[in-house]
Amino acid sequence: MKLFDVVSTKEALNVMKENFSFKLSEEKVSFFNSVNRYVSQDIESEINVPHFRKSLVDGYAVLAKDVFLASESNPVPLNLIGESYMGEICNKILDSEEAVYVPTGGMVPVNAEGVVMIEYAEKLGEDTVLIEKGVSLNDNIVEIGEDIKEKERIYEKGHLINERDIGVLAGANINSIPVYKKVVVGIISTGDEILDLDEGIRDAKIKDINSYMLYGQLSKISCEPIIYPPAKDNLEEIIELMDKAINECDMVLISGGSSVGKKDETIRAIESFENSKVLIEGIAIKPGKPTIVASVNDKLILGLPGHPLSCGFVVEAIVKPFILSLFNAKKDNRIILCEFAYNYHKSKGREEYIAVDIKEESRKIICVPIFAKSSVIKHFANCDGYLKIDRELEGIHKGEIVKVNLF
Amino acid sequence: MKLFDVVSTKEALNVMKENFSFKLSEEKVSFFNSVNRYVSQDIESEINVPHFRKSLVDGYAVLAKDVFLASESNPVPLNLIGESYMGEICNKILDSEEAVYVPTGGMVPVNAEGVVMIEYAEKLGEDTVLIEKGVSLNDNIVEIGEDIKEKERIYEKGHLINERDIGVLAGANINSIPVYKKVVVGIISTGDEILDLDEGIRDAKIKDINSYMLYGQLSKISCEPIIYPPAKDNLEEIIELMDKAINECDMVLISGGSSVGKKDETIRAIESFENSKVLIEGIAIKPGKPTIVASVNDKLILGLPGHPLSCGFVVEAIVKPFILSLFNAKKDNRIILCEFAYNYHKSKGREEYIAVDIKEESRKIICVPIFAKSSVIKHFANCDGYLKIDRELEGIHKGEIVKVNLF
Repeated sequence: MKLFDVVSTKEALNVMKENFSFKLSEEKVSFFNSVNRYVSQDIESEINVPHFRKSLVDGYAVLAKDVFLASESNPVPLNLIGESYMGEICNKILDSEEAVYVPTGGMVPVNAEGVVMIEYAEKLGEDTVLIEKGVSLNDNIVEIGEDIKEKERIYEKGHLINERDIGVLAGANINSIPVYKKVVVGIISTGDEILDLDEGIRDAKIKDINSYMLYGQLSKISCEPIIYPPAKDNLEEIIELMDKAINECDMVLISGGSSVGKKDETIRAIESFENSKVLIEGIAIKPGKPTIVASVNDKLILGLPGHPLSCGFVVEAIVKPFILSLFNAKKDNRIILCEFAYNYHKSKGREEYIAVDIKEESRKIICVPIFAKSSVIKHFANCDGYLKIDRELEGIHKGEIVKVNLF
Repeated sequence: MKLFDVVSTKEALNVMKENFSFKLSEEKVSFFNSVNRYVSQDIESEINVPHFRKSLVDGYAVLAKDVFLASESNPVPLNLIGESYMGEICNKILDSEEAVYVPTGGMVPVNAEGVVMIEYAEKLGEDTVLIEKGVSLNDNIVEIGEDIKEKERIYEKGHLINERDIGVLAGANINSIPVYKKVVVGIISTGDEILDLDEGIRDAKIKDINSYMLYGQLSKISCEPIIYPPAKDNLEEIIELMDKAINECDMVLISGGSSVGKKDETIRAIESFENSKVLIEGIAIKPGKPTIVASVNDKLILGLPGHPLSCGFVVEAIVKPFILSLFNAKKDNRIILCEFAYNYHKSKGREEYIAVDIKEESRKIICVPIFAKSSVIKHFANCDGYLKIDRELEGIHKGEIVKVNLF
């Protein structure tokens, strides 16, 4: 018995990072299929964006000195020497008192100092335009590289590509980008009570909530989860399945029950492998204490608690942070500050996770804890986010500002 | 010219909803492929979860009256009449001074009043157990349907399935669920300056930022975007492409330039169809004014502004809300309250969208506006969210609490 080996989530995470420092492989994906993937190398722009001086508006490219006194009551006539065509190089050079028509997005003459919007100009015949407004330097002109410079690092290694980024990639002329391969995670459910997907409900047997919730949670963070058929409470069956999963996956989650017998069985299965080591038996969190961290043939094996709420929070507490560290993932925008709705007392010594709902009340954001038995899944699925209360705290006061992790 | 036809985003959205009240088709998907899909019918649980009285812990099922005085110093001996096996029906009935061992997740005897954790019990031989703690009614027992009741409506029509919901669906014995079909959105870029995907940068021609950004933004909200090859500024080519897209898609976005000529061309292309009507020419937002809403053969056609920032914000302002209304989408959790970082002045009469970054400062969340020319894409991709400033406001004061839409 290793009763006192219970570690903090921080220690658990460190143990995982130290023992499983494997480097994820990379692959190239087309830029428009890169959303929700983690960039595996710094990405530089191949070109200046824009790569030519461009007009922001429909208007007349001019020299500033020609029009600095122009106004509606004192329009300045300029010689219209031609126009710039969309997509074409504009070779025109402005001489004193000359103007060139440029459409929005068109290239301006190389020495243009500003573009006067058509609203402030009036064409007189073919060759003359009356300008009714002055320009300051580079008015309505986008400079070369003003959006993105050639060789500019647009994404750091570890950046998560979002849906707007693919516009940037398109603009920067990057057709494919290197990303980390998805982490292949094996999911094994064990238990005589677990029904397979196509089995009807009977006796005291249940559908496998955890495996599918894990599938959902992992799919969201660039993993490729593989759900194996549930194993009965039979050591040999579990070992056989584990062996298969270890060979096929980067890491394996054993979503077993929370009973003492099941935990012991998972540990026996792990220890039956020659090159194996149980690193952690129990983590100081609520819910989620009966979590096992082990190594088999240098692959990470996690034994997760059976109660769905516990299992879900262990994923948030250590599984996700570990996987995100493999991707070198950067900042997380999902954390917001809220006012806590009640006085809440907790025991010292373990980190606590509480599902919360967020509501707005007189221009403040309030987070309302949802208390439920750890076997209950509905509220965890419905809630807006969760609160992590530090190990050494003894509770939270009503009105205290807390950090909520949004789902 | 319809110079004064500029409408508010609210009016635009109403026009879209009134004119295009098409009902999306439904399809059945397996529950574990339902993440990010919108449920098209109310979903009821097929079973009680759990469907049997279940123990939350490893322990001894007892009658409360037998152990109400039990303590460590005054343990109560009970007759151990057997155990409950995982997944099996437990037929045992407790008589006075009897106990049954139940593992976590196992079924408790029908008349069990509570379960005493093994930590508070000591087995004496095969037939006796010493109980060291009393129970109150239903201690450590999960009642039938306590998580989810049979026929309980677990999801309303319009609910967006999240990654944890699939655990709930698994538990509720729902193998497939009805969801709205993805909205098929055609994306057409027009312009002599637009390069196709495999063309190298040359002259004053550019890669098509908007189409790919639209692809990303729409993919995120249960759409199936189809990008058509870019059309040159040639009315016949545009009409041909529009005709194809109208036939193949539920709605069509024409991502054209922002020049007057291009806008007119888009309108001419729309009006060349027999059954067509331009409903809106211009929306009172900044950026994004030159937006066209039209109908061709009862399909919604949107002409979007060419500047990427404008295009992106028009999607946020009217395209997403319209599509989400087709899905009967419910609450949006992405809105948070922040303190505005500066004094900011705007003109009355148009709604304004500003990209913002969020930062934490002395237990407050501050949002910092990012100002950029509307042709610039980088900041829009990098920002944390955006602020919508109402039409009638003349600005925001430093320190004012504002609502930020997180991306």
